[in-house]
Parts: sequence; C-alpha cells; structure tokens
Amino acid sequence: MRIGELSRRTGVPVPTIKYYVREGLLPPGQLTSPNQAAYGETHERRLRLIRALLDVGGLKVAEIADVLAAVDDPERPLHKVLGAAAERFGTAESEHDDAESAAAHAVVTDLISRRGWRTHESNPAADDVSKALAAMARLGHGDFVEVLDDYADAAEQVARADLAYVNRRVAVEDMVEGVVIGTVLGEAVFSALRRLAHVDASAKLYGADGPPERKPKA
Amino acid sequence: MRIGELSRRTGVPVPTIKYYVREGLLPPGQLTSPNQAAYGETHERRLRLIRALLDVGGLKVAEIADVLAAVDDPERPLHKVLGAAAERFGTAESEHDDAESAAAHAVVTDLISRRGWRTHESNPAADDVSKALAAMARLGHGDFVEVLDDYADAAEQVARADLAYVNRRVAVEDMVEGVVIGTVLGEAVFSALRRLAHVDASAKLYGADGPPERKPKA
Repeated sequence: MRIGELSRRTGVPVPTIKYYVREGLLPPGQLTSPNQAAYGETHERRLRLIRALLDVGGLKVAEIADVLAAVDDPERPLHKVLGAAAERFGTAESEHDDAESAAAHAVVTDLISRRGWRTHESNPAADDVSKALAAMARLGHGDFVEVLDDYADAAEQVARADLAYVNRRVAVEDMVEGVVIGTVLGEAVFSALRRLAHVDASAKLYGADGPPERKPKA
Repeated sequence: MRIGELSRRTGVPVPTIKYYVREGLLPPGQLTSPNQAAYGETHERRLRLIRALLDVGGLKVAEIADVLAAVDDPERPLHKVLGAAAERFGTAESEHDDAESAAAHAVVTDLISRRGWRTHESNPAADDVSKALAAMARLGHGDFVEVLDDYADAAEQVARADLAYVNRRVAVEDMVEGVVIGTVLGEAVFSALRRLAHVDASAKLYGADGPPERKPKA
C-alpha cells in the first residue's frame, strides 16, 4: 500500500511516519519508483506497536528504537529484550553512599532470600527497589518497608500471570514481541488498575465521607 | 543555613537549587542581605521530595510543580492531589473510535461491576485501562483480558497496603505528602519488584535452561 493508505489505516500522519523511518523505528517501504514506496502488513503492525509504546507505554522515541532493535535481533536473548523494554522504568538516580542506601540494600537482599526468588541482588531491578526505598527513607518514610511483602505478593501474582500469558502464546507467534507488549502495556494496565483500586480501598476504609480533613500545615 | 550548606546536605548543586526556586518548585530562602538567603529544614525536606519525584518517580519538572501546588493548597481535596500525582501515569493517547475501544470499555465496565469496586467508569484511570487494552487488542493481544482478574487481585492487594500505610501515618503528619510519596515512589517500587518477580517466574516456568529458543522471524 502507499504511505497515504498506511496513514489512514493507522491514524498516524504521513510526516510522522516519515519521521519514524528516518529515526530507524520503521523499516523503509519498498521503492516502486524514485518517489514512491510500498508498505505492507508488517509496516502497519510495527507502526501500531510504535504508537502503543509511545502513547500508552509512555516511552520516548529513543527508548522505542532500543526496544525494537532488541526485538529485531534474533541473537539477542529474551531477557535482554525484556531488560531493554523495562529500562525506562529504571531510575536515573546516581547511587547515594549513605546509611539509607545501605539499609535499603539489606532490606532488598533479605526480601529476595526470604521469598526464595531465583534472582539476585545484582539484578538492576533490585537496585531500583533499593533506590526507591532509600529515597523514601530520606523523606522520613523508612517504615514503607512494612508493606514490602504485600507488594511482593502482588508482584509475584502479576509476574505469574504475565509469564503464563506469554507462554500460552509461544506456539502462536514470536514470543519476543509479546514480552515487550506485556511488559510495557501490562505496566500501564496495572498502574491504572492500582489507581482504581485506591478509590475503592479509600471508600472502604473511610466510608462515604471520604478521608479525614487535611490538617493545616505546621 | 546558606545555599552552599543546603547543597552539601542534599547533594543538589547550587545552580540546580536556584533553578528550582525560579521554577517555583522550592520557596525562596529568607533574605538576610541583598545577596544572601537563609534556608531551613523545610527547604531541605522539599528538596529531597523534588529529587525523589524527579529521579525515582521519573516525573518532569512541570509535573512536579503541579503535584507540589496540590500538596501546598490545603483547600485541595485529597483525591485531587492523588489525581495530580497519578496524572503522569495517564496516557496521552487520544480516544480511538473503533471496535477495539468499544470492546475494551465494556470489559472495564464489567470488571468494575463484577469486583464491586466503588468507583465508576468515568474515572480517568478506567479510561486508561481501556486505552491500554484497546491498544493491545489492535496488536493482536486481545486475549490479554484473560489475565485481567489476576492483575485486579494484585492491584487490590497493593491498594489495601497503600491505604493502610497512609492511614497509619495520619496521626503523625500531614497525610498529603505521604499520599504523593506512596503513589509515585510506590509505583517505582512495584514496577521494579514486578521485574524481579518476572525473573523468578521465568526460572520456575522454564527451569534453569531459560525460555525456549527464539523462533526466527517469518
């Protein structure tokens, strides 16, 4: 199909499609004349994936380029692809070297060993948990660690559901795209469900009157 | 304290502190002479909150300004503050008007009613769930809805833990900052825990050999 048809089918403006091609996110069409290129189903599908990662997943164009490069490289092991897809959720914060960091590291090491998770503390995600907990502790929220096991229970349940979903699809198609979609869009789904569940939990905890009045600032 | 001391205590460079003051994120210090200002504990605390939202929460400066304005306005009801804090997780995608959107909306309405959640489908978070599900369906992942109840179970558990945590702190301090920290940093904690749990679930599902070989692209 021509680029105009691709644009109509996906709702992505023609200049935007050309921009994605220039940035290497979308392979160029097949040239049919010096000024015309033909696009196929794979372009349409890739374009939808780009838009979903951008609009729903909240990834930046450069991050999408990394994720798609991983998807397109059959030599790249699956967990590296997952890593690239999950990278945007990583923190950019440089490591602090203080008591809060040390305590948070110890909490995470203990959590992993206590739950028997077959991963280890050198996993970048473990670092991200530590960094977030240390940042909370520096804000006087060190006791957030008390809810960590509730979070871990929930994370295990989501991870089991994710893996079962991906595994079911292995027979159907290349698993890698499924992992990317599940990781990035699944994150968006969970985040929104958590916000909905907050409203419900708040109604159950505080009743119809809502939470107590805000206390004036000291 | 002088700005240099504030910088040393928080690890934030002096020009960055001045930038936050110009952008209205941080209140100016008390002028002690035409060229010198004194900063206090509240500045130090606010600065740590800004850095945590920025570095760990991944919010942009403009988003932090919105969240802090909500925190500082005692007239603003709690759920509006939560809304501002959660806003960054919302999707920017414009509403599609297609079969996938209609089906996703129906799924979310059904989910809310089936689980007895005291919220309704006009909640922006409900829209975000629909949009993510519709984007997945357009990518051929319509059957992701099959794991939605597992996600909802986990979201309920996290929301209960969050509310119990916030509620426990009501006596201690202004609740609002706690809600902001819990929403934004709690999100970062959960996201990283989910990635850790993926590694564990993958090891349990596929054993030590890892997932099956990637199939070559068609």
